[in-house]
Amino acid sequence: MAQTAQRIALAARPSGEPTLENFRLENVPLPEAGAGQLLLRTIWLSLDPYMRGRMSDEPSYAAPVEVGQVMGGGTVSEVIGSSLPGFQPGDVVLGMSGWQTHALSDGKGLRKLDPSAAPPSTALGVLGMPGLTAYAGLLEIGKPQPGETVVVAAASGAVGSVVGQIAKIKGARAIGIAGGAEKCRYVKEVLGFDDCLDHRAPSLSDDLQRACPEGIDVYFENVGGAVFEAVLPHLNSFARIPLCGLIAQYNDTASSGRRMSSLMRVALTRRFNIRGFIVTDFAARGKDFYADMTQWVRDGQVKYRESIVDGLSNAPQAFIGLLRGANFGKQLVRVGPDKA
Amino acid sequence: MAQTAQRIALAARPSGEPTLENFRLENVPLPEAGAGQLLLRTIWLSLDPYMRGRMSDEPSYAAPVEVGQVMGGGTVSEVIGSSLPGFQPGDVVLGMSGWQTHALSDGKGLRKLDPSAAPPSTALGVLGMPGLTAYAGLLEIGKPQPGETVVVAAASGAVGSVVGQIAKIKGARAIGIAGGAEKCRYVKEVLGFDDCLDHRAPSLSDDLQRACPEGIDVYFENVGGAVFEAVLPHLNSFARIPLCGLIAQYNDTASSGRRMSSLMRVALTRRFNIRGFIVTDFAARGKDFYADMTQWVRDGQVKYRESIVDGLSNAPQAFIGLLRGANFGKQLVRVGPDKA
Repeated sequence: MAQTAQRIALAARPSGEPTLENFRLENVPLPEAGAGQLLLRTIWLSLDPYMRGRMSDEPSYAAPVEVGQVMGGGTVSEVIGSSLPGFQPGDVVLGMSGWQTHALSDGKGLRKLDPSAAPPSTALGVLGMPGLTAYAGLLEIGKPQPGETVVVAAASGAVGSVVGQIAKIKGARAIGIAGGAEKCRYVKEVLGFDDCLDHRAPSLSDDLQRACPEGIDVYFENVGGAVFEAVLPHLNSFARIPLCGLIAQYNDTASSGRRMSSLMRVALTRRFNIRGFIVTDFAARGKDFYADMTQWVRDGQVKYRESIVDGLSNAPQAFIGLLRGANFGKQLVRVGPDKA
Repeated sequence: MAQTAQRIALAARPSGEPTLENFRLENVPLPEAGAGQLLLRTIWLSLDPYMRGRMSDEPSYAAPVEVGQVMGGGTVSEVIGSSLPGFQPGDVVLGMSGWQTHALSDGKGLRKLDPSAAPPSTALGVLGMPGLTAYAGLLEIGKPQPGETVVVAAASGAVGSVVGQIAKIKGARAIGIAGGAEKCRYVKEVLGFDDCLDHRAPSLSDDLQRACPEGIDVYFENVGGAVFEAVLPHLNSFARIPLCGLIAQYNDTASSGRRMSSLMRVALTRRFNIRGFIVTDFAARGKDFYADMTQWVRDGQVKYRESIVDGLSNAPQAFIGLLRGANFGKQLVRVGPDKA
């Protein structure tokens, strides 16, 4: 009986919020590893906000997924076939197989994971790309000083949760912004932020004033839109604004809100430093990050939470939910049985 | 016969573009130096765009001039009376006497100038605050690398003219933007920029494309508004944007143009670094600046031009002209006979 693999292709580019119709689940024959190749079975697929950008063909820092192509994404996989020296069936690897149950690889760009050192899924979260994004963006751009106030949007998410915890480790105050009372409670009580504010509350600006009586020195931007507008008046002179994501704007089809010229005016008078970045810009910090973060996770100074859905076919719905903030912590798809 | 002094006070706050009615020329008795005081006679008054901000009471990095107060500003003065050790009548000093013919001083913040080393007026321009603004903003934030393209707005002005010339010294290409053919010719032919574009031309965006075929790596922002919007699409990934001034927006009463969210989006995808600054943020670089710039001016690597009006009473009209771009180089008011 011929085995099959499954994959999810981009069926059509979304206009505004993606819908299930933008994705197509396809059954294909199980590929076979040729000479110098590996066959990988996906265990975990990472869902991340940047994927929304890849679904569009607007100019960005990376090429879009073509219509009909498999959606890209970070994965943890098991090697189930190998004709490549150095890889054995049973090895667990970090790679970029994308939204599919199986993939071929020539081994380039793969990193072997040690399932006894840390749960392999963390290589997609706190010990992976989102963790490095938080670490490098906060420390290289935000540069929080002891006693300063750091505000982070999407504070219960994979990046934001780590930003606030590192801010605390560095002696700063950490104030989160998240969607809803449950997330806010988690950010305060479990992650140990000094406070967490609900961005759905109409009183967000007043709440920021109360939570940040000495103003905001670092605003780690994951969200954009109305949240940024609420934060702006509270930013201190010389505020640093690592610009990591704009999830509230990704589905925007019509712009609204303040004018660019008004942002430039406050950026001048209050001497902000606004700097856009993506994680690969800081690849050189990867080693420091991994050493520090492994220690912090082991010591319990950095905690994390995963939001897991089962089955590749549920990835589109989970991704749509992620863009709406339905996830709670790092969003993962358990594609196959977790080997680790 | 009692001698009199003259001064110009803020008569009323402007709404939009300042008018002559916002200023009031006052005749007052000549002050007398008391114990530990100096009496200064103003030789040169500097006019600078930042003064527009001081006329408003919107929050900014410095306190506004109060209605009825003398307008502030940098000055070169002659000591005409001294009961302060270390100062003699005839000394020429750099200070902040503001828009008046005479002022008392306790000596704090004054710097003695050597008229044999450089024309004293240059202490208000190329060897003073505008020069340091250009030097520090370009080198500390812009960080131009050899072969990169630097674009500077208001390229014939006191700051912009120096920015482009330092960019050339550092091995970068320098492209100016200025108002009108005469200024553009000066920027190219006298200052030695690689090109200079007229911001009044409807083809500015196309002209930028032609003059910067490899895109823009550093945009030194003096202007804001429509010029920034024309520059934005041509900025390369990792562009640095020293945000020094927004003269085109200072008189704005109604905002227009692109949305803040759209700026944030390109700043993220192209990883811009936008940083507002004022010259005092870089006071620590003053010594390096003075040594380098003195040498560059002496060697003819940095040229400068002054736009001079005679008489304190003409300062308001000259200032209104400055905001319209009517000046050509550093705008000065010759308040008294130039001693140097």
